[in-house]
Amino acid sequence: MSDDARAFVPGHVTGFFTVDRGDDPTKTGSRGGGIALSDGVSVTVEPATETTVELNGEAVEMDAVERVLSALRAEAHVSAETPLPLGAGFGVSGAMALGTALATNAALDRGLSYNELVTIAHGADVQAGTGLGDVVAQARGGVPLRLEPGGPQYNYVDAVPERARVEYYTLGELSTPDVVGGDTEALTTAGERALSMVVKEPTLPTVMRAARQFSREAELLTDDVEAVVADVIEADGDAAMAMLGETVFALGSGLTDAGYDARSCATYPAGATLDSEG
Amino acid sequence: MSDDARAFVPGHVTGFFTVDRGDDPTKTGSRGGGIALSDGVSVTVEPATETTVELNGEAVEMDAVERVLSALRAEAHVSAETPLPLGAGFGVSGAMALGTALATNAALDRGLSYNELVTIAHGADVQAGTGLGDVVAQARGGVPLRLEPGGPQYNYVDAVPERARVEYYTLGELSTPDVVGGDTEALTTAGERALSMVVKEPTLPTVMRAARQFSREAELLTDDVEAVVADVIEADGDAAMAMLGETVFALGSGLTDAGYDARSCATYPAGATLDSEG
Repeated sequence: MSDDARAFVPGHVTGFFTVDRGDDPTKTGSRGGGIALSDGVSVTVEPATETTVELNGEAVEMDAVERVLSALRAEAHVSAETPLPLGAGFGVSGAMALGTALATNAALDRGLSYNELVTIAHGADVQAGTGLGDVVAQARGGVPLRLEPGGPQYNYVDAVPERARVEYYTLGELSTPDVVGGDTEALTTAGERALSMVVKEPTLPTVMRAARQFSREAELLTDDVEAVVADVIEADGDAAMAMLGETVFALGSGLTDAGYDARSCATYPAGATLDSEG
Repeated sequence: MSDDARAFVPGHVTGFFTVDRGDDPTKTGSRGGGIALSDGVSVTVEPATETTVELNGEAVEMDAVERVLSALRAEAHVSAETPLPLGAGFGVSGAMALGTALATNAALDRGLSYNELVTIAHGADVQAGTGLGDVVAQARGGVPLRLEPGGPQYNYVDAVPERARVEYYTLGELSTPDVVGGDTEALTTAGERALSMVVKEPTLPTVMRAARQFSREAELLTDDVEAVVADVIEADGDAAMAMLGETVFALGSGLTDAGYDARSCATYPAGATLDSEG
């Protein structure tokens, strides 16, 4: 039996996005922008006779992870550790799918390339209905701009060439399937408008401004999130809502300056990777 | 006047490559594979009234860097620090071009995206005749496989999903313009054969085997390099020649195990980035 293997996948807060449905999952996805975070998910995969999935020590059902294992014809113990909350807009499901793909490939010598593994994880997250663009963004790192939707063979990803300290503060969960499963035309129009702002001026302050505009135009901004964002701006900070969760993210020390007990991390410059040799 | 800014660009050893000339520099480049290294180049750009370029404290002429500054309509003091030797197959010219692009964009608020800066640096390295694929690989990080040539708008880059300790040992220089400026048909055929080996089995040992095969088939292997590679393999290690330099790179502790006083570093998972806020 092969050894276990571990991968680290950055968290990803989405600022704005579109919904682009294609013929197949690898052409389906979203355009948009966000920030890859140094707070992420460590995924350990150990070959087993029966698959189990754990998140922070508790058994979870995670369709995207099971789809990845099935695509790689593997049974494994998957155990993930993260400081990020689930269902709050940090791409934890995408991270678990991508981390499982990378670590399973290594543990079981599946011999696939990076992009092939990203494609499998992206397709699994799309088919599970838990994400449309997180996996692709988490495979890039930095401040990814997804200019074309889909997996690596079809998409086109650029980035904002900056890095920053990032804070986040979570008030609650939002259901990704509920939002992206319905009528998404208005949301996509708002997402396109936001993306085009950032393409014209690819800087972090523009990403934040575009994200705030998107959350209003797409009618996803909740009252609670709006109040926190307003507090940060009042304190001369820069904040926006993370899609899709009741989460506020801010540049620098924006949230703590505004009096919130926020968690801090930073932009994470690399995409998901295997951990160094154990 | 704006502040100065600093970028870090990983070194890059190329194992095998093709020469693909296109209509313009952003379509010109190479396919191939290599390893991005944690030993890299730190490039500091400080706006100035007249351009000067320094490498490890000494004034240098570097066409690729001057072309980048000219494309960004900037005059600046560019100072680079690196443990890597110049002209020995580590992509130092590409790193200086890319680091200059990223840091100049930040120092002078040029407002360009990551891919736009990579495109400028790639075009500059190509036009200077000093590199065909290093910039693109250094923008990716990891163990990049360049499956299509050119800048980010045209190329397609995959990667081997592994990381490793890497050692290197340099015996001397080779001139990139001398090799890639001449008849490159046989070289490209050898490069395609090597790339197709790695696409079938995207693992680090296959990258090394493909690189060794390429260096022989492209007739670039020098006697001195061949002797060192043979010593590493004799000591159960895995080594190959870096293109284009009289340099041997090895996985793990291959060179020290064979008795060489080699420098060690590791695969570098991220592409070139600005340094954190100063």
